[in-house]
Amino acid sequence: MKKFIPTLLTSLLIMSCTQLQATQESPENTMADNMPKNIIMVVGDGMGPAFTSAYRYYNDDPNTPEIEQTVFDRNFTGTSSTYPDPESGYVTDSAASATALSTGIKTYNNAIGLDINREPIETVLEYAKKQGKKTGVVVTVQINHATPASYLAHNVHRYNYNAIADSYIDDGIKADLYLGGGLEYFIREDRNLVEEFIASGFHYIDKYSEIASIPKDKPVLGLFDKTNLPWALDDTNKHRLSMMTKAAIKQLENKNGYFMLVEGSQIDYGGHARDIAAAMAEMDDLAKTLEYLESYVAQNPDTLVVITADHSTGGLTIGKKTERTDPNINSKYLWRPEFIRAMTMSPQAMAIKFTDNELSLENMNKLMTFDITEADIINMKQAKLIDQGIIKQFNSLSSADKKGKRAPRPYQSVLNVITKIIDVKTNTGWGSISPSGTHTGIDVPVFAFGKGSENFNGFQDNTDIAKKIFTLLGKK
Amino acid sequence: MKKFIPTLLTSLLIMSCTQLQATQESPENTMADNMPKNIIMVVGDGMGPAFTSAYRYYNDDPNTPEIEQTVFDRNFTGTSSTYPDPESGYVTDSAASATALSTGIKTYNNAIGLDINREPIETVLEYAKKQGKKTGVVVTVQINHATPASYLAHNVHRYNYNAIADSYIDDGIKADLYLGGGLEYFIREDRNLVEEFIASGFHYIDKYSEIASIPKDKPVLGLFDKTNLPWALDDTNKHRLSMMTKAAIKQLENKNGYFMLVEGSQIDYGGHARDIAAAMAEMDDLAKTLEYLESYVAQNPDTLVVITADHSTGGLTIGKKTERTDPNINSKYLWRPEFIRAMTMSPQAMAIKFTDNELSLENMNKLMTFDITEADIINMKQAKLIDQGIIKQFNSLSSADKKGKRAPRPYQSVLNVITKIIDVKTNTGWGSISPSGTHTGIDVPVFAFGKGSENFNGFQDNTDIAKKIFTLLGKK
Repeated sequence: MKKFIPTLLTSLLIMSCTQLQATQESPENTMADNMPKNIIMVVGDGMGPAFTSAYRYYNDDPNTPEIEQTVFDRNFTGTSSTYPDPESGYVTDSAASATALSTGIKTYNNAIGLDINREPIETVLEYAKKQGKKTGVVVTVQINHATPASYLAHNVHRYNYNAIADSYIDDGIKADLYLGGGLEYFIREDRNLVEEFIASGFHYIDKYSEIASIPKDKPVLGLFDKTNLPWALDDTNKHRLSMMTKAAIKQLENKNGYFMLVEGSQIDYGGHARDIAAAMAEMDDLAKTLEYLESYVAQNPDTLVVITADHSTGGLTIGKKTERTDPNINSKYLWRPEFIRAMTMSPQAMAIKFTDNELSLENMNKLMTFDITEADIINMKQAKLIDQGIIKQFNSLSSADKKGKRAPRPYQSVLNVITKIIDVKTNTGWGSISPSGTHTGIDVPVFAFGKGSENFNGFQDNTDIAKKIFTLLGKK
Repeated sequence: MKKFIPTLLTSLLIMSCTQLQATQESPENTMADNMPKNIIMVVGDGMGPAFTSAYRYYNDDPNTPEIEQTVFDRNFTGTSSTYPDPESGYVTDSAASATALSTGIKTYNNAIGLDINREPIETVLEYAKKQGKKTGVVVTVQINHATPASYLAHNVHRYNYNAIADSYIDDGIKADLYLGGGLEYFIREDRNLVEEFIASGFHYIDKYSEIASIPKDKPVLGLFDKTNLPWALDDTNKHRLSMMTKAAIKQLENKNGYFMLVEGSQIDYGGHARDIAAAMAEMDDLAKTLEYLESYVAQNPDTLVVITADHSTGGLTIGKKTERTDPNINSKYLWRPEFIRAMTMSPQAMAIKFTDNELSLENMNKLMTFDITEADIINMKQAKLIDQGIIKQFNSLSSADKKGKRAPRPYQSVLNVITKIIDVKTNTGWGSISPSGTHTGIDVPVFAFGKGSENFNGFQDNTDIAKKIFTLLGKK
């Protein structure tokens, strides 16, 4: 302001500008002025900051001198704490965190859309529907999994999958579009929810190829697998989240706008499985989805996209203290994503093929994109024997003894060897020594672009994200 | 702007406001308007986002229903990537990252104030001195360690400790204040740099008690230990970084302002040692320092404080997948900092005492603040025998064979058992299975407050932080 000479007119200018700025800076007014027509909430399940950092290096083009910025880098706005209600300690599960993101309240781990008194709380999706917006969910797990369920349902426990699926009809249909997995819960012996959706006017599909021909004027239910979709690495379309999201937007666009939940659901599965190759391919599908959304928002600037994670999974550590092995690289803390960039099949699929005698060691080397060692081969063969023993033991149990026990995966030990080979090759670490990865209480990044995205700057709690979205939807 | 009726005057107002806003939003102009008198750069060595998140729960008062926000939460502005020059891969060490923070360029791991061509690059501290500002460094390691050295020196390798110390005199004295450790490098058989500092007009101290009586008008060198200071948990003053920082500010204040580097140096040591109790006490010392700086900036709003980490150490994971053991807590992913909050001695000090037969198991329980198990006691006794064996073997080596080998720590195995006991009790995990922790390539948080702090919002690279500080110091 030093440049202004204080005449009457410039004084007026300064005063008015100050008022104008005050108006713009007041949070309530910013939101009122910036109410977006469409809101797309994107959740990377399990996508803590180690995953978005790792993705930058996985995505790096080694043929250019610079490290390419990612869609996450250029849309970063802030960070979010994720702790659940004190009843559940400091580390959240997907249900409590998704409920925080969908309702703005803290709750206990396992809760779906309920507070700690087990009372239902209105979700942003439900509120958006009441405002006349169309609503939709696009996920890569079953559509009644914790994250989508927390926007669509109210249940005491996330694992009540059938009850949650039933509620999608029984509590009134809340969305105009559902794309994901979950056939096993929607077509059951006791109830066929798919038929009920069709009877309610829904167009139903169960193949990706049918996505292109969804009729424009009908609500749609797309269930493409029994539970979750295949890993991105193994799917017929490795960018199935982007494909579904594009189709969903076409379907949901209308004069009143829409609220849509998009979830990169299986990043979390990659963390639990301690499988860096699978996790990075899931990240890539999510990144491509966000790149598409960037271009969509450029054309439709009245749309807000908010991206965050519910928590971080696996304690992913990129880099490990090692002897310097590559004379060209001057570091003892190398992370080497070059060994997973070109993979085209998940370690799980490799383990299944190897167990089923459908994968020679030569082909294994091709699939791994690097040569595995003699010791690796011996370990895989031994693991196969261990798996055979485990299966034999399980099969010898009486039906009564089997009851309530989950059948062991006939390739689990082989899979553990394969992911370990990749960890050693890439110097990837994980945070606990249990075979199944953990959640960690680290804060998660927040990204946003489009109309109203400035509201998501800086430090916030996951409940704040829902509160801001409620305000942007006009809730007083 | 919808509120304005476009008369000539309001049109003028709108146009001028737009111009004014454009002026304010241009980064260069924002910085020029906001040049702070004093700049305090704070580095939490190794303090990745897992550490600031963990500190929130460590710091939580269990007697209140809410989880208290920390000084980190309320000053969070953004995030920073930390990768070194491609010569060193994707994961940085402290030297390359501190050089990025001090000079604005990417370099190779181990470099101190040099670029990849091994040419010296001007640091923000050197530039600030040229602008007539006073300068200072306050650290809890030796003052010639990687981070402070990267602001004060130029050397091909961080481990050339003597040469770096020598350069503090030989290249011209660059700071008005040095507080930290490092006697071993500054008083040597071949050279007494302390005497040289005194001959150059410095006031020298080597006890915390002498800090109160530093003469106001003299530059000061304070070396309080041979290399690093004791762990915060074991030091006579558990908040020695805050104490030193307060004294430093008093000493550096002058009409031209000052640039000061403050480092919470041993958070990184906690990560390398995979010692959550020690790491959280170091975090607490840093947090108390920042709380003091908040009050200082409230009184001195022409001061900028920027806080970040050079990298994250250890792959810290808070929470572990467990059976539900506490009927009052509904989670399988608990992190339990309650078992380390009341500790008053470091695991290292306990290990030394136990090894030296100065610590009964009863007193061990008191120091641990929880009851260790029979199995823990057996493990500690076995570890002591292992350590005795290792020492015996080392001592039996000839002088020639000992040469170049570092003497093993006579309590290392006992220490590993103790930190493991704490990890199991608190459900703390670490990212690699090597006994010495690793660096991980995860992005690190950025915090800022005071004049010009808005420049540190959002995503940035560690080199950007130096570039912004150069601009805020007036460099074109």
